[in-house]
Amino acid sequence: MDEPLTVRPDFDRLRRTGDPEAIYGAGKSVAQIVAALRALTTAHPERAILVTRCSDEALTVCKRAFPTASIDEVGRTVVCGPLPSPHGSVAVVAAGTSDLPVAYEAMTTVRAMGSAPFLLADVGIAGLHRLLAQRDRIADADAIIAIAGMEGALPSVVGGLVGVPVIAVPTSVGYGLSMGGVTAMLAMLNSCAPGVVVVNIDNGYGAGVAAARIARAIGSARAGISSDA
Amino acid sequence: MDEPLTVRPDFDRLRRTGDPEAIYGAGKSVAQIVAALRALTTAHPERAILVTRCSDEALTVCKRAFPTASIDEVGRTVVCGPLPSPHGSVAVVAAGTSDLPVAYEAMTTVRAMGSAPFLLADVGIAGLHRLLAQRDRIADADAIIAIAGMEGALPSVVGGLVGVPVIAVPTSVGYGLSMGGVTAMLAMLNSCAPGVVVVNIDNGYGAGVAAARIARAIGSARAGISSDA
Amino acid sequence: MDEPLTVRPDFDRLRRTGDPEAIYGAGKSVAQIVAALRALTTAHPERAILVTRCSDEALTVCKRAFPTASIDEVGRTVVCGPLPSPHGSVAVVAAGTSDLPVAYEAMTTVRAMGSAPFLLADVGIAGLHRLLAQRDRIADADAIIAIAGMEGALPSVVGGLVGVPVIAVPTSVGYGLSMGGVTAMLAMLNSCAPGVVVVNIDNGYGAGVAAARIARAIGSARAGISSDA
Amino acid sequence: MDEPLTVRPDFDRLRRTGDPEAIYGAGKSVAQIVAALRALTTAHPERAILVTRCSDEALTVCKRAFPTASIDEVGRTVVCGPLPSPHGSVAVVAAGTSDLPVAYEAMTTVRAMGSAPFLLADVGIAGLHRLLAQRDRIADADAIIAIAGMEGALPSVVGGLVGVPVIAVPTSVGYGLSMGGVTAMLAMLNSCAPGVVVVNIDNGYGAGVAAARIARAIGSARAGISSDA
Amino acid sequence: MDEPLTVRPDFDRLRRTGDPEAIYGAGKSVAQIVAALRALTTAHPERAILVTRCSDEALTVCKRAFPTASIDEVGRTVVCGPLPSPHGSVAVVAAGTSDLPVAYEAMTTVRAMGSAPFLLADVGIAGLHRLLAQRDRIADADAIIAIAGMEGALPSVVGGLVGVPVIAVPTSVGYGLSMGGVTAMLAMLNSCAPGVVVVNIDNGYGAGVAAARIARAIGSARAGISSDA
Amino acid sequence: MDEPLTVRPDFDRLRRTGDPEAIYGAGKSVAQIVAALRALTTAHPERAILVTRCSDEALTVCKRAFPTASIDEVGRTVVCGPLPSPHGSVAVVAAGTSDLPVAYEAMTTVRAMGSAPFLLADVGIAGLHRLLAQRDRIADADAIIAIAGMEGALPSVVGGLVGVPVIAVPTSVGYGLSMGGVTAMLAMLNSCAPGVVVVNIDNGYGAGVAAARIARAIGSARAGISSDA
Amino acid sequence: MDEPLTVRPDFDRLRRTGDPEAIYGAGKSVAQIVAALRALTTAHPERAILVTRCSDEALTVCKRAFPTASIDEVGRTVVCGPLPSPHGSVAVVAAGTSDLPVAYEAMTTVRAMGSAPFLLADVGIAGLHRLLAQRDRIADADAIIAIAGMEGALPSVVGGLVGVPVIAVPTSVGYGLSMGGVTAMLAMLNSCAPGVVVVNIDNGYGAGVAAARIARAIGSARAGISSDA
Amino acid sequence: MDEPLTVRPDFDRLRRTGDPEAIYGAGKSVAQIVAALRALTTAHPERAILVTRCSDEALTVCKRAFPTASIDEVGRTVVCGPLPSPHGSVAVVAAGTSDLPVAYEAMTTVRAMGSAPFLLADVGIAGLHRLLAQRDRIADADAIIAIAGMEGALPSVVGGLVGVPVIAVPTSVGYGLSMGGVTAMLAMLNSCAPGVVVVNIDNGYGAGVAAARIARAIGSARAGISSDA
Repeated sequence: MDEPLTVRPDFDRLRRTGDPEAIYGAGKSVAQIVAALRALTTAHPERAILVTRCSDEALTVCKRAFPTASIDEVGRTVVCGPLPSPHGSVAVVAAGTSDLPVAYEAMTTVRAMGSAPFLLADVGIAGLHRLLAQRDRIADADAIIAIAGMEGALPSVVGGLVGVPVIAVPTSVGYGLSMGGVTAMLAMLNSCAPGVVVVNIDNGYGAGVAAARIARAIGSARAGISSDA
Repeated sequence: MDEPLTVRPDFDRLRRTGDPEAIYGAGKSVAQIVAALRALTTAHPERAILVTRCSDEALTVCKRAFPTASIDEVGRTVVCGPLPSPHGSVAVVAAGTSDLPVAYEAMTTVRAMGSAPFLLADVGIAGLHRLLAQRDRIADADAIIAIAGMEGALPSVVGGLVGVPVIAVPTSVGYGLSMGGVTAMLAMLNSCAPGVVVVNIDNGYGAGVAAARIARAIGSARAGISSDA
Repeated sequence: MDEPLTVRPDFDRLRRTGDPEAIYGAGKSVAQIVAALRALTTAHPERAILVTRCSDEALTVCKRAFPTASIDEVGRTVVCGPLPSPHGSVAVVAAGTSDLPVAYEAMTTVRAMGSAPFLLADVGIAGLHRLLAQRDRIADADAIIAIAGMEGALPSVVGGLVGVPVIAVPTSVGYGLSMGGVTAMLAMLNSCAPGVVVVNIDNGYGAGVAAARIARAIGSARAGISSDA
Repeated sequence: MDEPLTVRPDFDRLRRTGDPEAIYGAGKSVAQIVAALRALTTAHPERAILVTRCSDEALTVCKRAFPTASIDEVGRTVVCGPLPSPHGSVAVVAAGTSDLPVAYEAMTTVRAMGSAPFLLADVGIAGLHRLLAQRDRIADADAIIAIAGMEGALPSVVGGLVGVPVIAVPTSVGYGLSMGGVTAMLAMLNSCAPGVVVVNIDNGYGAGVAAARIARAIGSARAGISSDA
Repeated sequence: MDEPLTVRPDFDRLRRTGDPEAIYGAGKSVAQIVAALRALTTAHPERAILVTRCSDEALTVCKRAFPTASIDEVGRTVVCGPLPSPHGSVAVVAAGTSDLPVAYEAMTTVRAMGSAPFLLADVGIAGLHRLLAQRDRIADADAIIAIAGMEGALPSVVGGLVGVPVIAVPTSVGYGLSMGGVTAMLAMLNSCAPGVVVVNIDNGYGAGVAAARIARAIGSARAGISSDA
Repeated sequence: MDEPLTVRPDFDRLRRTGDPEAIYGAGKSVAQIVAALRALTTAHPERAILVTRCSDEALTVCKRAFPTASIDEVGRTVVCGPLPSPHGSVAVVAAGTSDLPVAYEAMTTVRAMGSAPFLLADVGIAGLHRLLAQRDRIADADAIIAIAGMEGALPSVVGGLVGVPVIAVPTSVGYGLSMGGVTAMLAMLNSCAPGVVVVNIDNGYGAGVAAARIARAIGSARAGISSDA
Repeated sequence: MDEPLTVRPDFDRLRRTGDPEAIYGAGKSVAQIVAALRALTTAHPERAILVTRCSDEALTVCKRAFPTASIDEVGRTVVCGPLPSPHGSVAVVAAGTSDLPVAYEAMTTVRAMGSAPFLLADVGIAGLHRLLAQRDRIADADAIIAIAGMEGALPSVVGGLVGVPVIAVPTSVGYGLSMGGVTAMLAMLNSCAPGVVVVNIDNGYGAGVAAARIARAIGSARAGISSDA
Repeated sequence: MDEPLTVRPDFDRLRRTGDPEAIYGAGKSVAQIVAALRALTTAHPERAILVTRCSDEALTVCKRAFPTASIDEVGRTVVCGPLPSPHGSVAVVAAGTSDLPVAYEAMTTVRAMGSAPFLLADVGIAGLHRLLAQRDRIADADAIIAIAGMEGALPSVVGGLVGVPVIAVPTSVGYGLSMGGVTAMLAMLNSCAPGVVVVNIDNGYGAGVAAARIARAIGSARAGISSDA
């Protein structure tokens, strides 16, 4: 029972899946985060390493320990190391102000995984005109991340407007019987628009990985580059 | 233990609430339905009596037993007795074909309770253009009944377009984790559009009573008639 | 990823729905609340703007920043700007002492949306005589908001006594398996009294919007004023 | 693996608890029911044996096999053997017509376990006047069984009117999100009236045993008889 | 909106149900508790008034404000005023150490409502011999309150040993998927021992009221006193 | 109330989203299915129209009414009209024999929406060697559909082996507490492999649409064709 | 899409885990069962092959197709091929008559997997004396399978009496809120007796495999045989 | 009501089950823990006594009060008294870093109950190669404890690789809809690998007791020692 409580990253993942392991910051001590980030950036000097769900303290310590790292206080992420050239584009569509932290986590992930994100915020369905005004921008993306809490209807409306793959992210925004995002998640899984796929509640990172893989494969193919995810 | 299993209607309800008791057909024998309908039409000869959730057999027997009754095989209702003059209007907005039985139950209830319903069908949110094309008709109603299954987003979209009171009816249409309408109901209770109120799953009757009371009070006031619900 | 975290109100909502956007204070910083309130009162100088779910700090700061605003510490609301003339009346019926914050939020909303609320408190069903003594006052209202936690039976009893539209609000009052209001909400959705409609748990604001729209339409029609919600 | 599938009653239970084992008919073959009933009536010739949840076939076969048995087709029970002298009285209060099968099962159980039941039917809370008219009869009972489906509010109202012990029975009557009686059960467990206790959904038998034990103990004490349950 | 937030006790309850209203301390300010306790002790000088779920602060303040009150720091109750003569007896049977606060609340309630409680603690079913050793004491009580968390099996075992009415109280003791007492409650509602009735999670007060009403009716009848609950 | 119960397809969807509306056969009469299929094939003669969830009767009638249609009795689909040229490839990976109907529905959808599916069956995780043997074939696909019931672990294992986008489909295969696929769905939403996205239970169609959109965009880009979904 | 719907057993499992694959009969056609049984008995002529969850038709057809097979109509199993010598013993303890099918499935599995089962039936906790009378027989087993529905308390009581490993099997026996075995399963997972482990609802097969592996390892070691599971 | 709140250990448990009672530290005061530990070590001087779920304060105080005790800050356990000679071995297999506290609690329990644990950490299924590399070490153990959060698939994969009894422990590691370990627990109960048994969420102690009883019985038999659990 004297094994130390170290973090052992999966250094082989980049070879198998085309992306290095990311560090999920929640539930880890700041020391564990720093150690893991140092190990992964050393092992993969040519690729940006992503840390998600950082506490205020973790953001501060990382800023000091990795001066060149890029810190996002809204999405609570740290990115350290050279970003890959972006291929393809991802529209990140968010219903309300409170969904922005999840949107920022998704955007940072998309960028770190090699695609180009852009944000359309405050386009919730109680004010449809704002969303309809952006229809053409959305239709031009290679993948869409649609983020909403409460009744979670935004991905269905988006999925009825365009034929781009839609990744829906339920958020824990809401009150009463929103049940921490379960209502939104159930609504998204029952979308009447075909082809909407869903990730876990508040999982901007997961949506970002999926969207980046789709968009960069399309973008790479368009550019005549063979991707090997 | 020799009490007979008779149905005892609440004859006093018309006086207290302005509407006679309706007969909920499900779980009652055809003989019980006929007996209750006879008792209520006798007690209230001046008002139409409504039977809901009738089986095929109940519809057939009522047609024979009450030749002047109006039978609706889609909404599974029987109406017997003189309809009150309609006051005000109610828009019944239904997302898909499968929601029509609930919509018909709601319309029949609205009419029997003294208001004028009209139907807008197949205006689900996966094809927004159809709903937007009807915006002005909906805005002119005194109350709206918005009916949807699956992700249940229709009432939120309607509630963002107009300021008329919206009564949302979740339906048990859907599959997988739609859970017999629970997903739609949760979504409606968490609507981001203010003022949306909700009734139980598939409860077209309850929505019809609520909408009729609202619309006929407005319509009566407009006509200078004092209502006394 | 350099978009600022601003709040962007939906200034068009007043035109579409007849009511300006309200500000949901929970989950917003005090600075965001003040900014949104300033933007909305500037855009709609002729109508009162409502802020709900304010923290103690938000109430204090708003009192200083908007000296003419009306502050309610029980219902945790701020109202800023000229109140519309009230049309129609809304009875707010609350089961117990602990339901009063929700009742106050509902009353403030009703008043800000243009109708006249009055409160009947402590009329829970374990002491029926108190409720029965108020039957006639309730029957004279144009709409009723019935608020209860625990077993949530009050709206059913009220709905059996009068024919006025009843909007039921479950509250998170209770303990053990009251499950934060879910039991009361389920009970209200399954009411044996016809025409009871339901809003989300603790959602006094939503009930207030719905009731005000109903009551002011009736009151306006009675007064010969055409409303255009 | 050649053990026969026989039913082995607990013949010692009468000595331990004062009541012989009852036979739960559901899920047993008619042959198993007849064998168990024969074994128990033989073992306890001085006490009535109760069979609950009988299918049509089981009722018919028992009528033939036990000609002196008392058969109740509504409550689906068979009682065979001499009934004990009744002590004390139990009011069985049922909200609606559909709750009567559960009420009859409860009444038969009360009688077979040695107390005197009486029925008050159709006293649901949507028509309070009927219940209030019976207040004094209910207050005179030694125990009350209050039976309701849908929102399950009847026991709370009864518990606020009198101080007699109230045993609440939720029934699976209802539709939509009544969830087979769960809503009624949750409401009863959260009753705002003190002292309401609850049994499982549709469990008229369990309520009957509990009520009979209470009422016969009181009645026996009143009569100067020492009971030894 | 200037109604004060006062507590209005139901002074009529003693006349209707035989017991004065108790004060549920949770969710009330200390000032509200003191005011309610003063009002009820003044209205009913001949009967003890019970306060449950008191915070540390409420216990301290009540001790100062009502020097003759009896304070229980384990069960978190205050009793103020003359206790009624006890009639009948109630066995309070608790599975583990962590169930004692609920047991003490139940015992205080039983005593304040006019019966005599006695405690059997640490008789959980993982060590059956301790429970079996107390079988005869339990069988002599007029009512039993059986309290358990985790798998909640104690009431079933007790209900199989004796024929006394058993009121089961699930407690929120446990971890993992005990779900705050829901598992224990479900187990108790599904007891294979007939006649077990259940109250809400941790509701020692409700169990105490029900048990006291049963035991004092039996005890009074035995003593030749007519009770009028 | 004399509106006919017709089906009104959304003919505009092809223009908006690049795919014609599909017909969900469950809950529709055979006549409604035939009418909708005729209307859609007439409106879109250049594209295959898909019908899903067909009953035996619907398959038989469609075979007769549309002699050139392709019928799949396992996946319960009908495809009518010219298939688009396939672009890109989709690996459909199924855990067990019972998952094959969902796999076939997914494959038919992928093909009708313009990509090329191939099936890897019986590669459940209780026999890992079979899955590992196919690793390279899976890695070469442009998108993966991973289908599993029971504990739903297959998509996580696949997602740890390759970097291709994985769409997980929970199936209702299992027993006990598999709860009709909910367990598998929860497991998939909580996958420890990044980038796994999820559709509703048994929703092979939804997974097929999403996968086809991804794969055909990549395949088209590779072929130098501009897609306009 | 022309792959045939064949069943492909995992012939390698015997080598990896020491036991051949069993055939889960539910959801398979009789032809599929027969084919799989033939394939497995051919591949493993030295070991008995087990089929579980057989329909009446499957039992009949297997009896004809495999004349030497052993058929159990209560447990719905077929065993075909030579049984291994039994090592160690397993006590199968069942609460009630309705739990016997699960008990028989478990016993057949134990025997087919190489250990010796014995049955103790009708030892539910509402009649503790029967269970206590068997304490020593249970204590002598190498593993215990404890089977119960309703409140699921039997494994906790058994686990408090002896130190043998206890595998608990919840059954779907019960009614009302037993929820198809979920209540029993939750109770077993929350057992206050240490070391109780749980399998899925009605999963006699799973419990049998686990118990057989434990008992035969102990029995083999006792006999000086090295087992190589 | 003057009974003291003492802890009364079950000193007879060692005789009945072969293991002394362990002390569950959560929810007990430090003084209660110290008193119980002193009582049990005094009663059983020949056997180690285990305390689980200790707070930081409890660990510190125990270290001072019992200088010879062994303290584990990761698993939050205290062990005091002579360890029994170990028989048999238990592989403790943990998916991720966050599962280590549960793994350490399990290992300490295994050792205190008389078997020899060894740890295989960071072998989650998103990186299968690490697990496959340890297959032979796992296959040599007498029992396996497999610990995982999130989708909880590790025990299924392990159970497909070897024939050793597998005890699965779901952990509350995860986010979004992992629901505090419920998802992992459901997945484990629905494992497609036969013979996997499950304990409650985070219940390393329960898994340790079960595994130690299995392994020490096998190891003792192998060594020719008769165990008497």
